[in-house]
Amino acid sequence: MTTTAEEKETLIQTEDMAWGVMGDGIGIKVLRVSEETGQWTALIRQDAGATFAPHKHLAPADFYVLKGALEYRMGRAPAGSFAYEPLGAIHDETTCSEETIYIFTAYGPVVFYNEDGSVSQVLSHENILGVVNGAAQNYSADQAKSAA
Amino acid sequence: MTTTAEEKETLIQTEDMAWGVMGDGIGIKVLRVSEETGQWTALIRQDAGATFAPHKHLAPADFYVLKGALEYRMGRAPAGSFAYEPLGAIHDETTCSEETIYIFTAYGPVVFYNEDGSVSQVLSHENILGVVNGAAQNYSADQAKSAA
Amino acid sequence: MTTTAEEKETLIQTEDMAWGVMGDGIGIKVLRVSEETGQWTALIRQDAGATFAPHKHLAPADFYVLKGALEYRMGRAPAGSFAYEPLGAIHDETTCSEETIYIFTAYGPVVFYNEDGSVSQVLSHENILGVVNGAAQNYSADQAKSAA
Amino acid sequence: MTTTAEEKETLIQTEDMAWGVMGDGIGIKVLRVSEETGQWTALIRQDAGATFAPHKHLAPADFYVLKGALEYRMGRAPAGSFAYEPLGAIHDETTCSEETIYIFTAYGPVVFYNEDGSVSQVLSHENILGVVNGAAQNYSADQAKSAA
Repeated sequence: MTTTAEEKETLIQTEDMAWGVMGDGIGIKVLRVSEETGQWTALIRQDAGATFAPHKHLAPADFYVLKGALEYRMGRAPAGSFAYEPLGAIHDETTCSEETIYIFTAYGPVVFYNEDGSVSQVLSHENILGVVNGAAQNYSADQAKSAA
Repeated sequence: MTTTAEEKETLIQTEDMAWGVMGDGIGIKVLRVSEETGQWTALIRQDAGATFAPHKHLAPADFYVLKGALEYRMGRAPAGSFAYEPLGAIHDETTCSEETIYIFTAYGPVVFYNEDGSVSQVLSHENILGVVNGAAQNYSADQAKSAA
Repeated sequence: MTTTAEEKETLIQTEDMAWGVMGDGIGIKVLRVSEETGQWTALIRQDAGATFAPHKHLAPADFYVLKGALEYRMGRAPAGSFAYEPLGAIHDETTCSEETIYIFTAYGPVVFYNEDGSVSQVLSHENILGVVNGAAQNYSADQAKSAA
Repeated sequence: MTTTAEEKETLIQTEDMAWGVMGDGIGIKVLRVSEETGQWTALIRQDAGATFAPHKHLAPADFYVLKGALEYRMGRAPAGSFAYEPLGAIHDETTCSEETIYIFTAYGPVVFYNEDGSVSQVLSHENILGVVNGAAQNYSADQAKSAA
């Protein structure tokens, strides 16, 4: 039989954490990564004008906006917004016009595309662990570029 | 073959929602319930002194504190805290000394016990849907009582 | 940050395993238990006439019948049947008239009831681990009794 | 608030189903697809010599062998074998020397690579639904080719 190790109960003070670099103008504080399911939760901070490139969700995701306002396919999501992004959701550029912070949970991988439609990168929990382990800019500037 | 219906993409302004009643001094704004997996996400507001009775998590849960400070088995969780509660975590009374609001996700049911150790109630997504559908105090005052 | 330990890749020859005792006339070979999500997979063998008491699924479950035929709320499930039991499914007695073996996955706990409707027992991954660890009849004969 | 539709309880006689085409010498009977989580379960039949190209699991998977014997990274898996493939498992060619049938559950997508290491295709629940909906060979022969 196979069992996973029991996960420890944790309590984290996020204000004590430093922001990791997720892309140009995009910071991340990784709060949890499951190496069993690939689910991960993080605080994400986009500076004014910072942008995520078009992508497709291969698993659901959700987020709650803590500060600022996110602008994406569904419209403007100011502080206090909760969003659910189903499996298969395709998002054009996600941006903001002021510093925006949200708590984000992905239940699996996200795929980024090149302009010709081919896959440029698969963002999974492994990339997120890479940020935690100090790998600078775990995925390329093409995937998370400043539109400013 | 069987498939689930595709879930709609949603964006909710939580400030526009009214608080439902989850117990004495405990309000809830239900943000998402999966009728497939039983996972649910909600904003929970505990007034100063409001308390959850001892319970056991039959599935993991996590929360991020938006306001105030939650006091529970792991200590004091002020605004900005993120906590992960693993499967099997047993929590004595969870309380607060000031109004406290947090975003909470349960990945399955929670069990409440009587003083003699027998099960008093199983809190699952069905109870949460009951709150949404207007059932006042979907679980009894014994499970969520004011300690004030 | 918190991460789970990575689970090992495994390959098990189930024919080399001994049957554990799950109840009167009910054997079990536990193949996997996730201590993160509570999901578990097992081979279950019900002797002719062996019966599971009425229960409710607090998480989905599925099974594929390898031998014999299971008789339950949905009818007769002979070898080669695949069934999906959604969250909230309530099952009266599940029985069989010949030795029946199936591979079963539960995605979370199952609740058994007393005749007066009160909860008699919550069957979770902890009980399943109990069987593996040698606890004889991890839940009482009332929950899995022979109807023969 | 958003909720998923409740999934119907189902009982399927797999022997009454026709095999769909998954690749050269590879047949599939899709038993369940979750459009919420992306999880899918299917019977897969590989003819003698049929082969899956090298791939990486972006979510866990498991299988139970019903007939024949699968040959893969972990060795030979004859009928009666149960395997768990963790998140991140990288598999070279998976093949068999006799007709082999197994019940397989993927908890999320699988990625196939070109010889130069670039991504050739992401196999997700959408491809599986494509097979069900009659799309012949939902992913290219390069991904599932006969090695015979």
